[in-house]
Amino acid sequence: MWLLVWVLAASISVLAFEQPGINSLPANNPVKQPWIWPLPRKWQRGENTLDCSHMQIQYDHQHGILHRAVQRYKDLFFPQDDYPMVPYNWTTTDAHLSGTLKTLVIQVEQPDHDNLDLDTDESYVLDIPDAPAARAVLAAKTVFGAVRGLETLSQIIQWSPQHQRHLIPNAPWHIQDYPKYPHRGVLFDTARHYYPLQAIKKFIDTMSWNKMNVFHWHMVDSTSFPYVSKAYPELAQKGAYSPRHVYTAKDIQEVVSYAKDRGVRVVPELEQPGHSTAWLGVPEIMSCVDVVPYTGFTVQPPSGQLNIASNKTKHVVKAIVDEWAELFPDSFFHASGDEVVMNCWANDSSIQTYLQDHHMTLQELFSDFVLEIQDHIRQKNKTVIVWQESVLEYNLTMPKDTIIQVWIGAEGVKAATEKGYRTIVSSQDFVYLNLGFGKPRSNPYPDVAGAGFNHWNRVYSYDLRANLTQAQQDLIVGGESALWGELMDPMTFESLAWPRASAYAHNLWSGYEDSDGQPLSSADAILRLIPWRERMVQRGVMASPLNQIWCTRNPLDCFQPAEH
Amino acid sequence: MWLLVWVLAASISVLAFEQPGINSLPANNPVKQPWIWPLPRKWQRGENTLDCSHMQIQYDHQHGILHRAVQRYKDLFFPQDDYPMVPYNWTTTDAHLSGTLKTLVIQVEQPDHDNLDLDTDESYVLDIPDAPAARAVLAAKTVFGAVRGLETLSQIIQWSPQHQRHLIPNAPWHIQDYPKYPHRGVLFDTARHYYPLQAIKKFIDTMSWNKMNVFHWHMVDSTSFPYVSKAYPELAQKGAYSPRHVYTAKDIQEVVSYAKDRGVRVVPELEQPGHSTAWLGVPEIMSCVDVVPYTGFTVQPPSGQLNIASNKTKHVVKAIVDEWAELFPDSFFHASGDEVVMNCWANDSSIQTYLQDHHMTLQELFSDFVLEIQDHIRQKNKTVIVWQESVLEYNLTMPKDTIIQVWIGAEGVKAATEKGYRTIVSSQDFVYLNLGFGKPRSNPYPDVAGAGFNHWNRVYSYDLRANLTQAQQDLIVGGESALWGELMDPMTFESLAWPRASAYAHNLWSGYEDSDGQPLSSADAILRLIPWRERMVQRGVMASPLNQIWCTRNPLDCFQPAEH
Repeated sequence: MWLLVWVLAASISVLAFEQPGINSLPANNPVKQPWIWPLPRKWQRGENTLDCSHMQIQYDHQHGILHRAVQRYKDLFFPQDDYPMVPYNWTTTDAHLSGTLKTLVIQVEQPDHDNLDLDTDESYVLDIPDAPAARAVLAAKTVFGAVRGLETLSQIIQWSPQHQRHLIPNAPWHIQDYPKYPHRGVLFDTARHYYPLQAIKKFIDTMSWNKMNVFHWHMVDSTSFPYVSKAYPELAQKGAYSPRHVYTAKDIQEVVSYAKDRGVRVVPELEQPGHSTAWLGVPEIMSCVDVVPYTGFTVQPPSGQLNIASNKTKHVVKAIVDEWAELFPDSFFHASGDEVVMNCWANDSSIQTYLQDHHMTLQELFSDFVLEIQDHIRQKNKTVIVWQESVLEYNLTMPKDTIIQVWIGAEGVKAATEKGYRTIVSSQDFVYLNLGFGKPRSNPYPDVAGAGFNHWNRVYSYDLRANLTQAQQDLIVGGESALWGELMDPMTFESLAWPRASAYAHNLWSGYEDSDGQPLSSADAILRLIPWRERMVQRGVMASPLNQIWCTRNPLDCFQPAEH
Repeated sequence: MWLLVWVLAASISVLAFEQPGINSLPANNPVKQPWIWPLPRKWQRGENTLDCSHMQIQYDHQHGILHRAVQRYKDLFFPQDDYPMVPYNWTTTDAHLSGTLKTLVIQVEQPDHDNLDLDTDESYVLDIPDAPAARAVLAAKTVFGAVRGLETLSQIIQWSPQHQRHLIPNAPWHIQDYPKYPHRGVLFDTARHYYPLQAIKKFIDTMSWNKMNVFHWHMVDSTSFPYVSKAYPELAQKGAYSPRHVYTAKDIQEVVSYAKDRGVRVVPELEQPGHSTAWLGVPEIMSCVDVVPYTGFTVQPPSGQLNIASNKTKHVVKAIVDEWAELFPDSFFHASGDEVVMNCWANDSSIQTYLQDHHMTLQELFSDFVLEIQDHIRQKNKTVIVWQESVLEYNLTMPKDTIIQVWIGAEGVKAATEKGYRTIVSSQDFVYLNLGFGKPRSNPYPDVAGAGFNHWNRVYSYDLRANLTQAQQDLIVGGESALWGELMDPMTFESLAWPRASAYAHNLWSGYEDSDGQPLSSADAILRLIPWRERMVQRGVMASPLNQIWCTRNPLDCFQPAEH
């Protein structure tokens, strides 16, 4: 009986799908590499197909993170689309429908070690045997490794409109996977535009699906201070866009907990002492607020930096640090420090008076302030991250466990690692995803260096380690794409981020080279990135398309040297 | 009692909004021009404020288009947002709360003349007196003028969080409005990516709100043929992406009717004889289908043009023309004709044989085919539109009532009008909204001429009439932005289109110059475009932001010559 139904279903669907026209199932998509994004580090696969429509999952229900992950993936494993834009190419596999995947067994070696940190083990091994009643095993050291493995399995499973079933092609599978870099993040700017929690959570979901693990929360900046502090509620009262556009302690805990479930750390950045106009809820800690014209006082309006000569300033900043150190349990804390304009303080009479009274230079005062705040952060058992200006421009001397985030590009990475600092690579001319749209009012073309649109292939094939010694290369802990908020907001952030952040996720997890050290070709990459974009869309992400549908379905005919 | 409630409400809301911080109500937004987009041609306003929360609307309920428009605007008149991102600046007006707008009277001179065409009168006059119990009058010649006037009124009405009421600032108003160009459209490409009807309707809504009046439906192209023809259903069966990704006759009628209600014409473009691979459902009418490599056979894969030597081809094309002539009642019909590659036909042996048998050149055969199809369209009482190649490259001689749509830019406009043709301006380097993202696979920067991102200000301040004689200028019937589909789809079309298509809408309705002929400054424009973008977002449109919120609220501080 079962066989009859099967044959019947298969015949019906073959009829429905027999469209030998321009847009029939792709005849020339070789699927050289599995449709898994990012590509696992080591993988082997066979040529048979398993039906997994009724797969059972065995795991330790006691562990909350694992339990909730399995519940999520029960949905993600089994999407359905009878008319997919990018149909999976079954031609080589559906002749070998050789069995059923009865069970997935998840084995976690250290289920109670659920601290999420730079050294958290995210590795996993996934074995899917080829048998009439197969039992797959996903083995990981930590629950977070298991989360990564579940994602990989979700991308292996394909809905087959022909069979009206969920199938696993290319069994047997043996995948041994682990990230190239431990720090794989995105900077998310909620100061220039406000994002509701729902948008942030959706973004963290998508990060997790791309095996990214750091949500760098650039929460405050000159334009708004949405954080509702317990000690200084007036900061948000005066600095947030409205009483509705804020993040409370409860909101933050919700985001942190949501992210941890998905193997994503939340690293807060406390922007100061530059880009700080929005702290004006405590007016006595401010210098050069909203000078008009702003030129010479800030690189971006409104002007306003913290008054670094005031003890009250240190008191307020440390109070926020104390609150955030609790709310954000992560071991990293971003102390910011970018784009300070000394001229702001040089024109502040209270600071000039202070310098004269204390026989100090402005540089000394600035250095003292910044290092005192950093020390306060370290006392909370946090690793301090700063932008590259601190070492390359202000020449501050900081402990060697400080991590330098570099946005200026290759020279910056070289210089920071030469000084022996660990480094996060965020080169604006490769991985900034907010550029390419000119200036708000008048600039018709993105003609400024480092202001161009970063194409997915530029992100994907970026060599983070170019021209570095081995010792320098070893200091790179990873990278972050950046979604600065001048020209993006909840209406557009997803289409700007995805799939280009996916391209960096691939670079940081899989590397951009194959096992022989040769760069992976973009011709191969787009054959996997296109279906990955489609799968993200199917999951509700408003990702940008990479090409017209015909090219998506006929990539080898489309992507020729003379492509238009 | 009423007064007490009023005073109480006012005091409460003033308390709630008293935030003298960085993001308080804008102190320096001068609102030099009304927040109406596009700007009416003639307007006068006063300094008083009317409460219109309970405005009644008097109109002739007999007329369906008018009746449905009023129903729509009953919602659009009265949005509410207590924490708006761009609060209206009430400072100069709320001291003069001088009355109530009791009634809006809509007077339509010719309510039964509801044909929508190039010469349809869209003008209206809106008078809002300043009185304790005022009666406003919206007078128009046609229902479509009334629709435009309702939109204007919807943009004049502001929700006041302080008063918890909908108010009309700056009464009394006298507006006399009419478009500069009669043809104000957007090209929408549903062949390279498919759009569900819901997306198309939402787009038409947004067009109408921007007072645009032509939806140019580029329905078919090489990559898909979603139209379900009665005579040749095999075209969609083989040429659509799937049985779900099609447009039926019923779908088209639904769109046409939906658009007409909103004063938007639907002009179909039947792409042929180039860009025609997707017609292969009737294989005998095809030449050079999917040649690999495609270089030399098409400018964009897949290759494939209609076989212009076959009588069957003419028969099929005319059959589609016949069906569309019915389904699209508009008097315009776009016969397409762009980017033909002669080499495709030069390599088709059946065509070569035909030419030898008939002692013809390929150019003669091509010209005969194109003109015969055009004549067939004209026999349906349609005005033919073609792309500029027909006159500027193929040197076809066409009747002078043909309209030339020009995508190559100013030279093309000059050349087409020199030949005496009416012209639609769609210069790629100014009003194409799909550019700036490189090529699908490998091109990191948009470094090709005419391939850059067109900034809103470039669209807004584009001089369509540059270097033309008065006679040539008079031949410009209007313009269309273009949303070509290679790199946009339902996930991204709204953020790419809006508010940049709004900028062209302004250019085409209001002109880019003031009443003295001086170009309107972008500094003034952005003060109105930003709130207009916010209002579109409030209406559900995923429009791109134009700046960080602080600049939106403090434009004069933000937009200085040295803007970052």
